[in-house]
Amino acid sequence: MNAPLLSCSNRLRRTPFSRRVEAAGVKAYTTYNHMLLPTVFRTVEEDYAHLKSAVQIWDVSCERQVEVVGPDARRLVQMTTPRDLARMADDQCYYIPMVDEHGRMLNDPVLNKLADERYWISLSDTDMLYYCKGLANGFGLDVDVFEPDVSPLAIQGPKADELIRRAFGQDIVDTRFFRHKTINVQGRDMIIARSGWSLQGGFELYLDGSEHGEAVWDMLFEAGAGLDVHAGCPNHIERIEGGLLSFGSDISMEHTPFEAGLGKYCNLQTATDCLGHAALLAAVNPARQIRPVEINGDAVPRLTQLWPLRNASGASVGNVSSAAWSPDFNTNVAIATVDKGHWSEGTELVVDAPDLERSVRVREKFWI
Amino acid sequence: MNAPLLSCSNRLRRTPFSRRVEAAGVKAYTTYNHMLLPTVFRTVEEDYAHLKSAVQIWDVSCERQVEVVGPDARRLVQMTTPRDLARMADDQCYYIPMVDEHGRMLNDPVLNKLADERYWISLSDTDMLYYCKGLANGFGLDVDVFEPDVSPLAIQGPKADELIRRAFGQDIVDTRFFRHKTINVQGRDMIIARSGWSLQGGFELYLDGSEHGEAVWDMLFEAGAGLDVHAGCPNHIERIEGGLLSFGSDISMEHTPFEAGLGKYCNLQTATDCLGHAALLAAVNPARQIRPVEINGDAVPRLTQLWPLRNASGASVGNVSSAAWSPDFNTNVAIATVDKGHWSEGTELVVDAPDLERSVRVREKFWI
Repeated sequence: MNAPLLSCSNRLRRTPFSRRVEAAGVKAYTTYNHMLLPTVFRTVEEDYAHLKSAVQIWDVSCERQVEVVGPDARRLVQMTTPRDLARMADDQCYYIPMVDEHGRMLNDPVLNKLADERYWISLSDTDMLYYCKGLANGFGLDVDVFEPDVSPLAIQGPKADELIRRAFGQDIVDTRFFRHKTINVQGRDMIIARSGWSLQGGFELYLDGSEHGEAVWDMLFEAGAGLDVHAGCPNHIERIEGGLLSFGSDISMEHTPFEAGLGKYCNLQTATDCLGHAALLAAVNPARQIRPVEINGDAVPRLTQLWPLRNASGASVGNVSSAAWSPDFNTNVAIATVDKGHWSEGTELVVDAPDLERSVRVREKFWI
Repeated sequence: MNAPLLSCSNRLRRTPFSRRVEAAGVKAYTTYNHMLLPTVFRTVEEDYAHLKSAVQIWDVSCERQVEVVGPDARRLVQMTTPRDLARMADDQCYYIPMVDEHGRMLNDPVLNKLADERYWISLSDTDMLYYCKGLANGFGLDVDVFEPDVSPLAIQGPKADELIRRAFGQDIVDTRFFRHKTINVQGRDMIIARSGWSLQGGFELYLDGSEHGEAVWDMLFEAGAGLDVHAGCPNHIERIEGGLLSFGSDISMEHTPFEAGLGKYCNLQTATDCLGHAALLAAVNPARQIRPVEINGDAVPRLTQLWPLRNASGASVGNVSSAAWSPDFNTNVAIATVDKGHWSEGTELVVDAPDLERSVRVREKFWI
């Protein structure tokens, strides 16, 4: 696997499920929001094939929540995003670009609305808690902003519905995409949403109270008996195929939502209270954009830093931010930021990294 | 070493020195501010002995800078800290607790003043960039806040002065503790401070411009010929002996500066613009405090989560946050948060963790 060792400490937080994850044979981790996130159980390829055919339980506790509660809750969240929150239902989940005053990306979380004045921002890997606290202080908002003891556990894969039916009943299976319902687990009300960081379908259960973690984990595995349920994690190959962007890898603070291909989440007509609104109005026609690209040849090595992209004349035209060999599509699937004039379907480019020189072809769509 | 594997990606940023660090035989990493931080080169014990006898070059690029520049720069930084910045000289470095409106710790960086309206906040492991941006937006401050392309490289150990004398001359060696001077390296002005995260003495060179990283690294190793210079990193044993606290391990957002033993950096008479000022006035007599403790018996296992502390009657009285076997002091050195009534020197307590039960003795001072 050619991965270095990770020195663990209290600073890289364990999760309510860590002992179960270890017992299930976790082989490697990354860190995310100052917390351990499993990356491999059997091999990345075996985990991939299993995710697409069965059902997995994922410890994604690292998707930490920022709870925003109080009369100014919506006002605060709306300041951070160009997605209009006015019509969001109390059981709804929104994928939202979060931006600064320059319209540059700060995070791309799932926002869960819990009540009229109460939200959970389910984070990608930056301390949005700090940004929200800074805004709340600076604008003197009437809100509380904090990280609750909530740790998402994802149930993903084609057999996720059957597992959830057995565990929580048909009513929960009937939850619509990006909506949530409330279940009572271990005597505690918790929310469960039809969502998750794969394209295989499934749910995210927001464990409320670390002390219930192992019981919930065990209950799901018992419910999954006979369904080939296995411990899993966000899969490096599957998420690239499906075009699920990773903040910090594919999206940086240098990107606008339009550059990140998230223009459809920008309601610039109505979301005028977003602090980046004016900047975003000037950014609707980006000079570069995130695109799926195919890298020719056999399996590429692990990408650990951006790989420069050049055109036929050798000019820099962008970079590749994620790449993996896809067994199902029999090619290297990849995500790149590509300059205007070079991003149309079929454009041939070259990856020009110290350890890799390959031809590349821009695609219109991800592998879905 | 019993460490898991780390899956690398573009999200865990490499540094301007990563190729040199790999060539020097790095064995393990942690992650810090979304970046790789080496933790072991030979063994933690060999690195420790060498740090105390020779000189090491540390890639601490992960101490990312928040640059705050503009007419309101000092006002913004002062909002975040109870340490009075009024008399800070333009060549001075301050260790500052940074707190929220509740007086709770957000970070414990070294603040470098570069000019009247320009500061670098040299971070521990949280996105203070986001907090500062939130405050700047909310209060409408006239400042720019961003992360510059600056990557600290530390030169630490008893022979650091000699290495710096050879590389940059006696004038730089004469830099006073927590002051900085400017050197010209590779045609570029950079600052170098007498500082660093060890008790062995030395400097931190703030590499300005990633493209100069390898040349600066090589130049320092050439200057160190014959001084037994080696690649190193913050040492887990030495920093515990010396009482250098780690934000996220020893200090959390639950601590006030007084609980963290940082009361001497709280100028509550004068630093009244700190947003946590009122809360801190009520927190000067803490109900718990960080203390050095000695854990009896042979070498403890690696601590990866808080170890509960109990008194003789079995009541919870705190927890241990960092621990290591010290070859020089022939005992387990450790850092704990201990409740009032149990923190005086010589108090006998018990570590009561699932994998460890040991007697513990509270100390007055760290091992220095």
